[in-house]
Amino acid sequence: MYPRKLTRSVISNPDYPVVETRAGKVRGLWEEGTFLFRGVQYAQAKRFQMPQPVEPWEGTREAIIYGPVCPEIHTPIAHDQYNVPHYHYIQDEECHYLNIWTQHIESDAKRPVMVWIHGGGFATGSSIELYAYDGHELSAFGDVVVVSLNHRLNCIGYLDLSAYGEEYKYTANLGTADLVAALQWIHDNIAGFGGDPDNVTIMGQSGGGGKVHALLHTPSAFGLFHKAVIQSGLSTGGRETRPEQSQALGAAVVAELGITDIKEIETIPYYKLARAAQKASAELSATTGMRVGWGPVRDDEFYLGSGMLNPFCEQTKNIPMLVGSVLGEFDQNYNNVYAEGSKNDWPEEQVEALIRKIYGDAADAVMAAQKKAYPKAKLVDCLFTNQGMRVAHRDFCNKRAAEGCAPAWNWLFNLECPLNSGTIPWHNAEEAYMFHNANYLEASYIPGVSEQLQDQMTGAWVAFAYTGDPNHPGLPVWPAANAENGACMIFDAETRLECHHDDELMEAIPPKGMNFGGARRPTSTFGGGPRQSI
Amino acid sequence: MYPRKLTRSVISNPDYPVVETRAGKVRGLWEEGTFLFRGVQYAQAKRFQMPQPVEPWEGTREAIIYGPVCPEIHTPIAHDQYNVPHYHYIQDEECHYLNIWTQHIESDAKRPVMVWIHGGGFATGSSIELYAYDGHELSAFGDVVVVSLNHRLNCIGYLDLSAYGEEYKYTANLGTADLVAALQWIHDNIAGFGGDPDNVTIMGQSGGGGKVHALLHTPSAFGLFHKAVIQSGLSTGGRETRPEQSQALGAAVVAELGITDIKEIETIPYYKLARAAQKASAELSATTGMRVGWGPVRDDEFYLGSGMLNPFCEQTKNIPMLVGSVLGEFDQNYNNVYAEGSKNDWPEEQVEALIRKIYGDAADAVMAAQKKAYPKAKLVDCLFTNQGMRVAHRDFCNKRAAEGCAPAWNWLFNLECPLNSGTIPWHNAEEAYMFHNANYLEASYIPGVSEQLQDQMTGAWVAFAYTGDPNHPGLPVWPAANAENGACMIFDAETRLECHHDDELMEAIPPKGMNFGGARRPTSTFGGGPRQSI
Repeated sequence: MYPRKLTRSVISNPDYPVVETRAGKVRGLWEEGTFLFRGVQYAQAKRFQMPQPVEPWEGTREAIIYGPVCPEIHTPIAHDQYNVPHYHYIQDEECHYLNIWTQHIESDAKRPVMVWIHGGGFATGSSIELYAYDGHELSAFGDVVVVSLNHRLNCIGYLDLSAYGEEYKYTANLGTADLVAALQWIHDNIAGFGGDPDNVTIMGQSGGGGKVHALLHTPSAFGLFHKAVIQSGLSTGGRETRPEQSQALGAAVVAELGITDIKEIETIPYYKLARAAQKASAELSATTGMRVGWGPVRDDEFYLGSGMLNPFCEQTKNIPMLVGSVLGEFDQNYNNVYAEGSKNDWPEEQVEALIRKIYGDAADAVMAAQKKAYPKAKLVDCLFTNQGMRVAHRDFCNKRAAEGCAPAWNWLFNLECPLNSGTIPWHNAEEAYMFHNANYLEASYIPGVSEQLQDQMTGAWVAFAYTGDPNHPGLPVWPAANAENGACMIFDAETRLECHHDDELMEAIPPKGMNFGGARRPTSTFGGGPRQSI
Repeated sequence: MYPRKLTRSVISNPDYPVVETRAGKVRGLWEEGTFLFRGVQYAQAKRFQMPQPVEPWEGTREAIIYGPVCPEIHTPIAHDQYNVPHYHYIQDEECHYLNIWTQHIESDAKRPVMVWIHGGGFATGSSIELYAYDGHELSAFGDVVVVSLNHRLNCIGYLDLSAYGEEYKYTANLGTADLVAALQWIHDNIAGFGGDPDNVTIMGQSGGGGKVHALLHTPSAFGLFHKAVIQSGLSTGGRETRPEQSQALGAAVVAELGITDIKEIETIPYYKLARAAQKASAELSATTGMRVGWGPVRDDEFYLGSGMLNPFCEQTKNIPMLVGSVLGEFDQNYNNVYAEGSKNDWPEEQVEALIRKIYGDAADAVMAAQKKAYPKAKLVDCLFTNQGMRVAHRDFCNKRAAEGCAPAWNWLFNLECPLNSGTIPWHNAEEAYMFHNANYLEASYIPGVSEQLQDQMTGAWVAFAYTGDPNHPGLPVWPAANAENGACMIFDAETRLECHHDDELMEAIPPKGMNFGGARRPTSTFGGGPRQSI
């Protein structure tokens, strides 16, 4: 995605490197030992229709620049643009493009395929939105095939129009249908890029983790992936949208648009559709109290519903999983919501006062439990310890174990980064490390620490992709998690395995749900609104 | 702008690095010896009003992420997104932000200030649009202070509403007024960032070169800059818009909007204004045959008119200049307009047939003159030799000399790059070299060649910023240009000084004007329309 300091020419000649796909030839790049193919079309679709295979073409198509990304309902400057640098790009509804990094273009190489599904909830983001998503280092480090992809989002990916006719039957899950189409393309074509179609790991963070979770319960995806990674993608209690809710939103959007013939919705400009969708969803949320938004809808046919709320699907119980979150997530001092300056310089009495203000009656229990869970941590970090995601990911692993699924390994990313003289890991912080990009990202890099940690983490992800088990010689022994062992790998300057280490702390911290709301909602320093970032 | 492989922590602490400006303190970054300040607000302005100084603030503002960029009238995927990688960003009319790279934050350092003014005509682009614009390497290489900036463009920067009241008097030149405000901010504040306010070099490419040219004839800018660089920013014959033309466009836009109270134009959404402006300008161009567009308007008060068409201003005759273009500019084989494959592999008879098709009766003269001008060049490169910009920049230097101005040095960038087994330098290609970023840009980098050439070119730009003369020990002796000596520095794998080398060739090639139009107009591989790229 981004320029790196080159020591060799990048080759992109008319006849090299070229790979033949089922639809035709694509010509990419060869850079420092890694082949790159950008903007390869994996499907095509008209608005509100299911994705179709790409029309075959004559000759060779260029795959040297990224394809358009899905229109976002709203794109302000993110509050976390510094520590999570974003790459914005041209938006277009025809966004069915994927990118490939590989060390081989021979079909007998059969390397593991690691498919990255981006975050941004089901509403925003893209395969190239975050600099951390660049797959070059991961591919080179692990000799794996990395694929990232765009798909339909928000009101063109998840607007339920099923009440308006058979041709709209699956509209509530089109964004997921695109993911399935991409996995089908990978199955059919990835061998030509050195990948093993029988060893595909899907992985995603935030909304991307939610999408991985959805694919575990999407019958058309069964058999197209073999391992799964969820990073900060689950919330406590889970969530399931039913057709009566999504159809109500669909009807509200249609009413807001004021159209008389439903066919008009296929051609009105995107921005008009998006405005109507935003207005209708806000009003419906306000009047009904329902949580109305964009995401998969449980229709018991295309999508079978959340694994947090139901028994896991029999057909995907055999999928090994790697499931974790980060210490701070959204609990940050963005825009000095707690105080000015560095948290590590705040006087002790100020810290204690803040903790008492935030945690109220629970403050003493939180402070005591934090000391037990993290004996070397600073007291102030109580303020920046996320509860919701940590509990959700831990409990997800335990539920997998309890239902006899393939192993699920639980982890927590804890590395404090140097920004502001010390910042607890934010939502997205681990991506720099599992993509082996920490020393390209200003806010993440710590000389003498990052090198080892990214080897450990990228190594675990790669080992998992190869074998279904993240253990490797650079890590302490890591058992899969269950309720009895409470095992969790703490990725930190000193990576360590802990057992039940934060059970008391998680009990002590009052749940805050998704923790986006109210006074702590972050905005950028330029006044842009908050992104819908999960 | 983009992540580079780090070998040290990037420091951005609440108290370091901090610089005090007239309006308040800003806190930036310290990275590998270079200080970075991103998104520093230099002015503020309501729509259609002149820029005003920034309101002072208390405390310290963050300057660690880029500020919003000006809304573009249209942003497709550029046809040259591969060889000229673009960085897109959040657009907002409040776009008065600049970025600083420096080696010092002591006010006695007094290093030369190099101000980069972006291209994209007067309609699109931003200070961070192209990866090549990143100022880190240039600042570190030359120990100079690099500044880049955003300003108002298109229908909010150059829509002439002067007929609608005194408060709109300067609306036709607001984009330039923003540039003046930025130069004023630099004058007032740059010492705190290690810069010398009495040694400011303005430089720009394409539209940015046009903006530099405009500033030479803008009285409010006089004294705020001391040296000037124009890169591929002039076209043959020059161009001057007069108030009767720009007011006609203003009236057409107002009519298209259908507003009754002119005040409404200050608050209608940008996208509505932009659509009306696009429609009105297209219609006015079609009906009147006028070249209608966005750019400075000669009102003989704010802007005194083109130096291509009038005697140079007395007040800026003392400005030394560095003026040049590149061999190919827009004459490329984008989308295989000539033929498939690499130009260097086309059979000789095919090449000659193409040359005869393109140049008609002039073909023999072109081929003979090309052999004389570039004895080592391939015949096929006749197809990729730009005439309009080369002549314009050469003649501009000669005119400066003829009118007794300070010296103007003429150059031509000729390096063939490896893309497609050989590509003649494209519009923007030299930026990678004068910013010392060639080995960060895939299409530009040639091991063993780029290192020396970027030292030579960046060295020339830096020497010019220090002394007003681009000569340095790494270059052949380089006299300033005039009609008699025909001196031109050819930046190439073997950089050389030539005299009158291509006079015959420039005579032989039939002029094509700006060469954007007709069948050769390039589009991206994803069908996005062509960018307004000058």
